[in-house]
Amino acid sequence: MSYVVGVDAGGTSTRALAVAPDGVVLGTGRSGGANPNSNPPEKAAGHVETAIREALGALEPASANACVIGMAGTAKLTDPQVAALFSAVWERLGLTGVRIVTDPEVAFASATPAPDGTVLVAGTGSIAARIRGRRMVSTAGGYGWLLGDEGSAFWLGREAVRRALDELSGTGRLGELTRSVLAAADVDAADRSLAWRRLITVVNGEAPVRLARFAPLVSAAEDAAPILDRAARLLAELAFAARDPGESTPLVLVGSVLAGPVGARVREKLDGLDVRSSTDGVLGAVRLAGIEAFGEDFATVPGDLPRVP
Amino acid sequence: MSYVVGVDAGGTSTRALAVAPDGVVLGTGRSGGANPNSNPPEKAAGHVETAIREALGALEPASANACVIGMAGTAKLTDPQVAALFSAVWERLGLTGVRIVTDPEVAFASATPAPDGTVLVAGTGSIAARIRGRRMVSTAGGYGWLLGDEGSAFWLGREAVRRALDELSGTGRLGELTRSVLAAADVDAADRSLAWRRLITVVNGEAPVRLARFAPLVSAAEDAAPILDRAARLLAELAFAARDPGESTPLVLVGSVLAGPVGARVREKLDGLDVRSSTDGVLGAVRLAGIEAFGEDFATVPGDLPRVP
Repeated sequence: MSYVVGVDAGGTSTRALAVAPDGVVLGTGRSGGANPNSNPPEKAAGHVETAIREALGALEPASANACVIGMAGTAKLTDPQVAALFSAVWERLGLTGVRIVTDPEVAFASATPAPDGTVLVAGTGSIAARIRGRRMVSTAGGYGWLLGDEGSAFWLGREAVRRALDELSGTGRLGELTRSVLAAADVDAADRSLAWRRLITVVNGEAPVRLARFAPLVSAAEDAAPILDRAARLLAELAFAARDPGESTPLVLVGSVLAGPVGARVREKLDGLDVRSSTDGVLGAVRLAGIEAFGEDFATVPGDLPRVP
Repeated sequence: MSYVVGVDAGGTSTRALAVAPDGVVLGTGRSGGANPNSNPPEKAAGHVETAIREALGALEPASANACVIGMAGTAKLTDPQVAALFSAVWERLGLTGVRIVTDPEVAFASATPAPDGTVLVAGTGSIAARIRGRRMVSTAGGYGWLLGDEGSAFWLGREAVRRALDELSGTGRLGELTRSVLAAADVDAADRSLAWRRLITVVNGEAPVRLARFAPLVSAAEDAAPILDRAARLLAELAFAARDPGESTPLVLVGSVLAGPVGARVREKLDGLDVRSSTDGVLGAVRLAGIEAFGEDFATVPGDLPRVP
C-alpha cells in the first residue's frame, strides 16, 4: 500500500499524518516541540521520530512514497551535528527521501492548492515570503526583534509599553491600554515618575521577546486602534514587498496576530486579492508530500482531510 | 579662601575643577570613568575621589562653599549600598553638602547661564529634558534601546543594518552604506542570501547597543541622507515634546550624534530658536556650584574658564 507522510514540527508540538493517495488518513501521531532553535536538537529530533512512528503504526516504512516535514528554525539544520541527529531518525524509522521544508512553505500549501503566491506570517515575529512552485524563493522582513519584526506580537507589545511610557510622561488621563499594560507588568501607577522608571526596568529585566506578552492587550483596548492600524499597514507593506505589481496569486495569512483585529485590518488593505488563512500546517505538509509522490492531482485532495486531534 | 568644586563624572573619565568666586581655576583633577551603571560602583566612587583630591591639592576641604557632581546613571544612587560608597568618599575628602545632579543638568548649565530651557541629548541613546531653575523637571524619550532611543547612535546603526538587509533581499545594486556596513561587520556580500543571514547573526550575537558602532557609517555614506533626515526629525520632535508651545528659552544640544550631520539637520529644524551646543560638562558643574555658593552673578563667570586638559 502506497502512502505519504506529512509532519508539522512546531515550537511546542509536532504532528504527523500518514495519508493514502485518495486522501484517506491512515494514521496520526503527535508529540512535543521540534523546532531545533527553541528545543534541544536531540529532543527535537526525538519528538519528530515519536510523532512519525505513531502515525505509521503498522504501515511498512519502505512503502512511504514521500515524507515532507515543515519545520520552523530550519537554519539550524545547516549545523552538521544537528543534521546528523535527524538523519539518524530517518534511518531508525526506515524512511528514505525525507524532505524538510520551511514553515511558510507548509503554511502556504495548507491554505491553497496553487503553486505560486505569498505567505504573510505575523506571530511573535513577522515575515513575508514569495512562493513559486511551492518553494520560498525570497522573503521580505524576517529580520528578528532587534532589527525589525514590524507588526508582530513583539512589535505590538513594544508599542503598548511605549504608549504607557508616553502617557506616564505627560499629565493627561491614563488610557485603557496604559492601565492594562501597567497591571500586566504589576506596576503601580500612583506615582507616574516612579511607574515610568519601574516599567522600563521590568521590561528590560526580561528577554526582549517577552514584550509579545503585551500584544493581546492591544487587541483588547478601546484606545489602541492607531497601533492596530499601524501594525496592519506595516504588515500589508511587508506582503506587497514579496509580490510583483499586479500579482493575482493567493495570499495566505498565518500566525496569532493575523487571527485577531490586526488580521481583519490587513484583509481590508488587501481587498480584491485572494486572501486565505492558513489552516493547519500538517495538511500543507501532506499536500506537498502527496504532490511529490502522486502528482499535481493530489493538490486538491487534502482540503478534505480531517483535522488531527 | 572660599571656592567651589565642579565634577563631571562620565562613563570613561571623570574631571574636577576647583574654582574661586572670580572664576580663577585653583586646581584641576582627572581620573577614570565614574558612571555607576557602566563601572563597578566601588571603582566609580574611587575615581570621583581621585579626581576631586587632585583638584583640591593643598586647598582646605572645609573651605569649599559648594560641590556639584554631574553624573550619568544617577538612578543607581537610589541603591543604599551604592549611595553609602559615595558618602564615604565625601567623608574621607572632608567635603560637606556635595550635590549630585544628572548629566543633562550639567550639560545645560555648561552651555547657557539661563535657568530655564531644554536639553536634547543624542549619544548612544536619546532623551530630551525640560529644565526649570537649572533642574530637570521632566523628560521626553529616554526609554532606552529596547523601547526607544529614536535618532540615537543605536537607532542610526540599526537603520544602517536594516538598509543593508533590505538591499540584500533585493536584486538592485548594493549602495555605499550597505557596503560599508557589510565591511564593518566582516560579512562577504558575494552570496546575498548568505550575507543577509550572516549579518543578522553577527548583529544578534553582540550586545544590542553595539549597533551604535555602525552610526558613523551613516554620517559618512553618500546615500544615507534619508536616514539622517529621519533621525533629525525624530530628535527635533523629542526636543519639542519637552518644550511649551512658543517657548523661547535656550535649547542645548549634547552628544556625539548632535555633533555630526544629524546635528546640522536638527539645527535647521530648530531655526529661530536659541540653539547652543554643550561645551564641557565640568564647566556646567562649576557654574551650578558657583551659583549655589555665590549667587546668580556667578552664572556668567564660568564661560571664561579654560578647558581642563
